[in-house]
Amino acid sequence: MIELRTPITVSEAVERVMAHARELGAETVPLDESFGRIMAQPLKATHDVPPFDRSPYDGFAIRSEDSRGASGASRKAFTVIGHYGAGAVFEGELGPMQAVRIMTGAALPSNADAVVMFEQASINGNSFMIRKEFAPLENLSLKGEDMAEGEMLAAPGSFIQPGIVALLATFGYTDVKVARRPVVGILSTGTELLDVHEPLSPGKIRNSNGPMIAAQLARMGISCRMYKTAGDELESCLDMVRQAMEECDCLITTGGVSVGDFDFLPAIYERLGAKVLFNKVSMRPGSVTTVSVHSGKYLFGLSGNPSACYIGFELFTRPVLLKMMGATKPYLPRTTARLGETLAKANPFTRFIRAVYDGSSVRSAGFNKSNAVSSIARGNALMVLPGGSRHFAEGDTVDVLLLGVEEGTDCWII
Amino acid sequence: MIELRTPITVSEAVERVMAHARELGAETVPLDESFGRIMAQPLKATHDVPPFDRSPYDGFAIRSEDSRGASGASRKAFTVIGHYGAGAVFEGELGPMQAVRIMTGAALPSNADAVVMFEQASINGNSFMIRKEFAPLENLSLKGEDMAEGEMLAAPGSFIQPGIVALLATFGYTDVKVARRPVVGILSTGTELLDVHEPLSPGKIRNSNGPMIAAQLARMGISCRMYKTAGDELESCLDMVRQAMEECDCLITTGGVSVGDFDFLPAIYERLGAKVLFNKVSMRPGSVTTVSVHSGKYLFGLSGNPSACYIGFELFTRPVLLKMMGATKPYLPRTTARLGETLAKANPFTRFIRAVYDGSSVRSAGFNKSNAVSSIARGNALMVLPGGSRHFAEGDTVDVLLLGVEEGTDCWII
Repeated sequence: MIELRTPITVSEAVERVMAHARELGAETVPLDESFGRIMAQPLKATHDVPPFDRSPYDGFAIRSEDSRGASGASRKAFTVIGHYGAGAVFEGELGPMQAVRIMTGAALPSNADAVVMFEQASINGNSFMIRKEFAPLENLSLKGEDMAEGEMLAAPGSFIQPGIVALLATFGYTDVKVARRPVVGILSTGTELLDVHEPLSPGKIRNSNGPMIAAQLARMGISCRMYKTAGDELESCLDMVRQAMEECDCLITTGGVSVGDFDFLPAIYERLGAKVLFNKVSMRPGSVTTVSVHSGKYLFGLSGNPSACYIGFELFTRPVLLKMMGATKPYLPRTTARLGETLAKANPFTRFIRAVYDGSSVRSAGFNKSNAVSSIARGNALMVLPGGSRHFAEGDTVDVLLLGVEEGTDCWII
Repeated sequence: MIELRTPITVSEAVERVMAHARELGAETVPLDESFGRIMAQPLKATHDVPPFDRSPYDGFAIRSEDSRGASGASRKAFTVIGHYGAGAVFEGELGPMQAVRIMTGAALPSNADAVVMFEQASINGNSFMIRKEFAPLENLSLKGEDMAEGEMLAAPGSFIQPGIVALLATFGYTDVKVARRPVVGILSTGTELLDVHEPLSPGKIRNSNGPMIAAQLARMGISCRMYKTAGDELESCLDMVRQAMEECDCLITTGGVSVGDFDFLPAIYERLGAKVLFNKVSMRPGSVTTVSVHSGKYLFGLSGNPSACYIGFELFTRPVLLKMMGATKPYLPRTTARLGETLAKANPFTRFIRAVYDGSSVRSAGFNKSNAVSSIARGNALMVLPGGSRHFAEGDTVDVLLLGVEEGTDCWII
């Protein structure tokens, strides 16, 4: 009666699922829509930055040679022959003991090579005195010191955060080649499921997994196609899966993957001829999480239990979707933290506990059965407790995976 | 010539700027557009969860009293009189030694009070044997054990992450009252600024601050009104600021706030009659960051230097915008990390260094002058080095503020 499944480790499951991800190709978007996308082209400096020698201060541009011999006892006087701010240029050259008054960001006259800051000058009308020598290039921001023309600044696969947007703007990228976003379908299965607008009735609950996954996708900037909730009937569910597989790059189902009498997803994988990558992972919750591939598309069979569903998405679906977009850092960022409480319960499987991380310590987010919705809402992290019989004491150092962070990490190490 | 300004500490500046934030009011959005918004209503459990006693396992629902006396030596036999999955209900009651076969999530018959898991039963056709007693409520998921009707699950001001979306769905919130998003204007000033599409010309650079701030706002889910780049002319710039102040809840300007000859923002604040909250902060970069308020609206005068601009936004503008939306955790999340390099340069002001944080250690993101764009693009954090003459050695523990994290923290402690 009970189908026997062989559990694999989480890292083995991650490896298997990632091995099948193929990239989806690119599209071009205007710069002002590029935030949050994944670069599908290299970002190279198209010119030096700064593009010209400029002043990093408000002051006077001089020829350093004219300062030679200046000291407190032997001051040197300069005549100001021009005055401009950033954006203007000085036509002509400085003569001996001449200077121009320039503001931060302004280009220097072609033969000036040092800047006297206001506080280094004794100003008197149209002239000023200095009491020290200035070295060539003193107080200058040199052409190309930040970035040199041709330099690779961000590789394809980079997440476009505001700093990358600033670089794209600097180099005149009005349009940006970014990874196409996958088309993701969500199909919640279970005769017990009501839609959000429906009143409760005996034995039924509202479908929370569908909207939750839609939000997990929205967090990644990915929209979804929401399919009508399916009851636990094989044929109608199979039809809906077939239709969704036509329309999407990847289909996420919730429920129906366990070994219960009305869990039809395993039969659907068989009918489709999908290749099951795994159907049992040595983790709690979500050990029944099943991933299969068919015609180059993914079927993520997440558990119907909300916490297991949430975690299955974060551990397996999220990195695959990022890899499909070519992202070089597809995994949840990881840190370690001091355990803020004692967790006595032991489990042979690795546990992922919805948790609150405050920057130094971590605690479970509350009632933590896999069917508990409330703890998902309170947590900002997943605490990872390796499988085994030991218990974990307050003060122990534990692994923490951070949720809701825009940039991840490039390797899976749990 | 040089205007003297009195610097205040970063924490004092944060306090001053936050003190003026007023909330903008609420609007209602459909559940599937609620992710990333700030709750403007409390989220309360409208019913118990689970809403009925249910089975957390696939197995048989029994009356526990019928198991009394069961042991390996004295097995008890049950007859299965029904079979259903989650979503169905059993009409009627169990008689003595009767059971129903139910699946995970299914409601129990009204007089059943325990569940025999499949692996605890010897199944034979339509009957099964047990070899142990079952206590009342054994293997049950009890009505209300996750959440009780009336329980406050998320207070107004909570960030709506996917777990909150799951709760909203569970309780039938088809629409959600969320904070209105502020209307934010961006006005980049500087005669040197070219638009992204314009070719470089002598003395000019492309405006990267405007697109960067737009992306920093997009990261918060806030769109912006981008005003035409203004040259360094007082009257035309004043007109544009006046217009923007009419149209926006908050205006962010870049450039023009220092004490240079063409820095007209201080004069504009004076002409508007705006109250300057501060115009000098003991921080690097961005010491000239100026914030003023006028008619209940903010004018953020960020530095024209890209890094200073970026940091000024994250430290001052971001928490104010979040407070205007009623968010209870408006500040950047903070952690500490091991310094991965030696930073010898001392500074009397607190330094915020764009940095790469890998979950345990932190390093500066590279070339780190305040006018460097490249380091913004590489970093995912700000390293905070307190002001003073000491240097910082590899292995020291330093404060780190994390960027691009959806949920912040409720207090500012740096």
